[in-house]
Amino acid sequence: MVVGVTVWGENVHERTEAHVRAIYPDGMHHTIAAAIADGLGASVSVRTATLDEPDQGLGADVLGGTDVLMWWGHIAHDDVDDALVERIHQRVLSGMGLVALHSAHYAKIFRRLLGTTCSLRWRNSGERELVWTVDPSHPIAAGVPHPIVIDAQEMYGEHFDIPTPDELVFVSSFAGGEVFRGGCCFRRGAGKIFYFSPGDQDYPVYHHPDVRRVLVNAVEWATPTRTDSVDRSQSPPAPSGWFE
Amino acid sequence: MVVGVTVWGENVHERTEAHVRAIYPDGMHHTIAAAIADGLGASVSVRTATLDEPDQGLGADVLGGTDVLMWWGHIAHDDVDDALVERIHQRVLSGMGLVALHSAHYAKIFRRLLGTTCSLRWRNSGERELVWTVDPSHPIAAGVPHPIVIDAQEMYGEHFDIPTPDELVFVSSFAGGEVFRGGCCFRRGAGKIFYFSPGDQDYPVYHHPDVRRVLVNAVEWATPTRTDSVDRSQSPPAPSGWFE
Amino acid sequence: MVVGVTVWGENVHERTEAHVRAIYPDGMHHTIAAAIADGLGASVSVRTATLDEPDQGLGADVLGGTDVLMWWGHIAHDDVDDALVERIHQRVLSGMGLVALHSAHYAKIFRRLLGTTCSLRWRNSGERELVWTVDPSHPIAAGVPHPIVIDAQEMYGEHFDIPTPDELVFVSSFAGGEVFRGGCCFRRGAGKIFYFSPGDQDYPVYHHPDVRRVLVNAVEWATPTRTDSVDRSQSPPAPSGWFE
Amino acid sequence: MVVGVTVWGENVHERTEAHVRAIYPDGMHHTIAAAIADGLGASVSVRTATLDEPDQGLGADVLGGTDVLMWWGHIAHDDVDDALVERIHQRVLSGMGLVALHSAHYAKIFRRLLGTTCSLRWRNSGERELVWTVDPSHPIAAGVPHPIVIDAQEMYGEHFDIPTPDELVFVSSFAGGEVFRGGCCFRRGAGKIFYFSPGDQDYPVYHHPDVRRVLVNAVEWATPTRTDSVDRSQSPPAPSGWFE
Repeated sequence: MVVGVTVWGENVHERTEAHVRAIYPDGMHHTIAAAIADGLGASVSVRTATLDEPDQGLGADVLGGTDVLMWWGHIAHDDVDDALVERIHQRVLSGMGLVALHSAHYAKIFRRLLGTTCSLRWRNSGERELVWTVDPSHPIAAGVPHPIVIDAQEMYGEHFDIPTPDELVFVSSFAGGEVFRGGCCFRRGAGKIFYFSPGDQDYPVYHHPDVRRVLVNAVEWATPTRTDSVDRSQSPPAPSGWFE
Repeated sequence: MVVGVTVWGENVHERTEAHVRAIYPDGMHHTIAAAIADGLGASVSVRTATLDEPDQGLGADVLGGTDVLMWWGHIAHDDVDDALVERIHQRVLSGMGLVALHSAHYAKIFRRLLGTTCSLRWRNSGERELVWTVDPSHPIAAGVPHPIVIDAQEMYGEHFDIPTPDELVFVSSFAGGEVFRGGCCFRRGAGKIFYFSPGDQDYPVYHHPDVRRVLVNAVEWATPTRTDSVDRSQSPPAPSGWFE
Repeated sequence: MVVGVTVWGENVHERTEAHVRAIYPDGMHHTIAAAIADGLGASVSVRTATLDEPDQGLGADVLGGTDVLMWWGHIAHDDVDDALVERIHQRVLSGMGLVALHSAHYAKIFRRLLGTTCSLRWRNSGERELVWTVDPSHPIAAGVPHPIVIDAQEMYGEHFDIPTPDELVFVSSFAGGEVFRGGCCFRRGAGKIFYFSPGDQDYPVYHHPDVRRVLVNAVEWATPTRTDSVDRSQSPPAPSGWFE
Repeated sequence: MVVGVTVWGENVHERTEAHVRAIYPDGMHHTIAAAIADGLGASVSVRTATLDEPDQGLGADVLGGTDVLMWWGHIAHDDVDDALVERIHQRVLSGMGLVALHSAHYAKIFRRLLGTTCSLRWRNSGERELVWTVDPSHPIAAGVPHPIVIDAQEMYGEHFDIPTPDELVFVSSFAGGEVFRGGCCFRRGAGKIFYFSPGDQDYPVYHHPDVRRVLVNAVEWATPTRTDSVDRSQSPPAPSGWFE
């Protein structure tokens, strides 16, 4: 079975800021999509979608054919339609995987799934980030060096206002001394969610081979296994002895 | 410091169904409020609030003075104002405790905090529920018999579509054979949330002394400790070396 | 790669009690081994080992070739050599999977890995056990009916003195009303551990097709992924900047 | 009720190394004990115990009167009697709190309770450690600055081979870039266990007021609540209907 992966990009910084366009001439979403296609080959079908497309890129056909949705947004979170957020939410609860990247900590869909503010501390001064594995058996850490060294990144620091992750995979440190739970798994309904913090638009983070490896692993991990057949859309009555 | 407890009741079944009114002449909210007042005495100030009151019972003054909110709703979940749900949500994330009772699994505020459908299976045939403690050291289980025997209750059964609880305290079984994770703790932002499943309106569950003990324990557990001074309402920049 | 599975059986009840031998003429270990071989075919190499064999069935060659160890013991826990327990312990921490069955809750290796007493309540009166799935997305629940109906089993009830499981998959109820966290995952070092409570020697539980499905799923889940290359046997010094 | 706190110190470095004795003239255990006595006053009765005392400082009377045991050991872990470790283990499972400090990650009692190797990476070059709070509502973080700044400490880095903590309170970063889950809670049986990594003998860490605050908070948190009356020492039979 071919896994449908859709990489959604806000695509604003790339169009409005020359230094971002220099790093990502086709937009971050294309760079990320290429990482997945390179890593998983014929087992996936990768497409991109952006905010400025009809239906904000995620019409019923596209969303219905998406097994794993990757999401990068930052400056235009508020422009995402609430009705679309609702449709994505239901898709995740029904089993679609979600990989939320960097400033997507503040995406409507991420906050809605987690129920918290998802606030954090930040500093954009291009400092070194080290991504340490705290769960070396986790499939998302497979083949990932310990640590990943990212020469320049925006700092994201604690306190990160999320529920306790179901699985904590990576913890980052920054040159300035802060730490951040930057690789976190959550399970909501039948869906698996992975948040990965590296990836500010000002730095070529999604060209980094180790970061790309994490993205590939995350898509594999978040792919629905289709073993979960629970219908969560209703609360059905259960006559006594129905299982006998 | 006196802890402000507000017991919010939907107060519909009690007004429209004689057999419910016979069990709870003043409404379930008054019975629950009395349990808390009896159990915690002068350390708490307990009030009630209902859907049919101005501001649906939870105006700014009331909500602002509430340290722990208890919630019972069922047939009128949809009537609760979205703006009120938003205000309660922010209060919980800022530290207010929430005790969600029985059919409040489908309350807007509960689903919003958890991010899942909170669906389950049910059967209302007045069968025996046994509430077993799986975490005997948990403060909410203090002084609670193992099991609590409730002679007649609505059955709530798995699968219960919630995130994995941060702490699982009680698991119920029913005469018909089903099981249910009926005593679950969640932590969201600075707030503590406890869900407790016993309490259908058709049975005198909130008169049961062991159930009342659980409610009292839950209020004590959910009371904000005020040791958490993180401002989650924003993501502040952090200059390099700010902590030195 | 062929996965090496070893089914260790105490093999005492089967030799000394006629009614057990009638259910398991070749011993429980053979019935369990056949379930795995039937379910996983050429992808596994299944062998059995028993307490009465040289090296208690688990000499260096056998243990070294075992990727997943299944363990059934009851009356002879104390006869297992401490040195063997130590070797199994190290193997699990290095990645070998362990599937502990029924009364293996009291096996030396299980208690050593978990660090608690693993005590529980029990009643052997051949009553119906219902095994409910509380984590329907979990790979060990794949294809398993909700609930599994086991007509006659020994009752195991809470409180079960284990650490909070890393993943809770199944909760059982019994005709007498008790509940039990009977399907629990633990991760220790690089190894995955699954405890599954059905399987008293007095009943033909390991002939039950749904139970066999769980065992097969558990072996697949517990198989080491070999993505974890951490050497846990020592605490190495790390010179400053070693990762640059 | 007065809480009995015993601070166990290995007391080897202090006796054999002048520079350690200069920092802790009476031994680390006395400095730690003074922190607890200063912080909790008449609500606690604090004593010290050392390896070189009769019964290694923890005879039946002392251990029986200890509600919370604090443990610092390093170079002499192997000298601790296995029979004593067994007695401490049973005490913890019965409810005694345990606060394990720094190199006690390798103490027999800690490894026995956790079941893993507890290995880590280290570098003793007197670098700055920052202790960040990731769970600001946790009672052990009450009144603790974010971050605690420790000017000179031994580096402890991931991977730290422990089970996933039941509660993760602090994560440290070091000047060299490493991170460490240095403040972890575990619950085993009726006992609460807190591991706190700061505190190498070569630096005056236990004189640091913020570190002392953590120790005080940890003792309060680990104090048995006496609400847990489960007898874990056996697995009792439960006749059908025993709870009716």
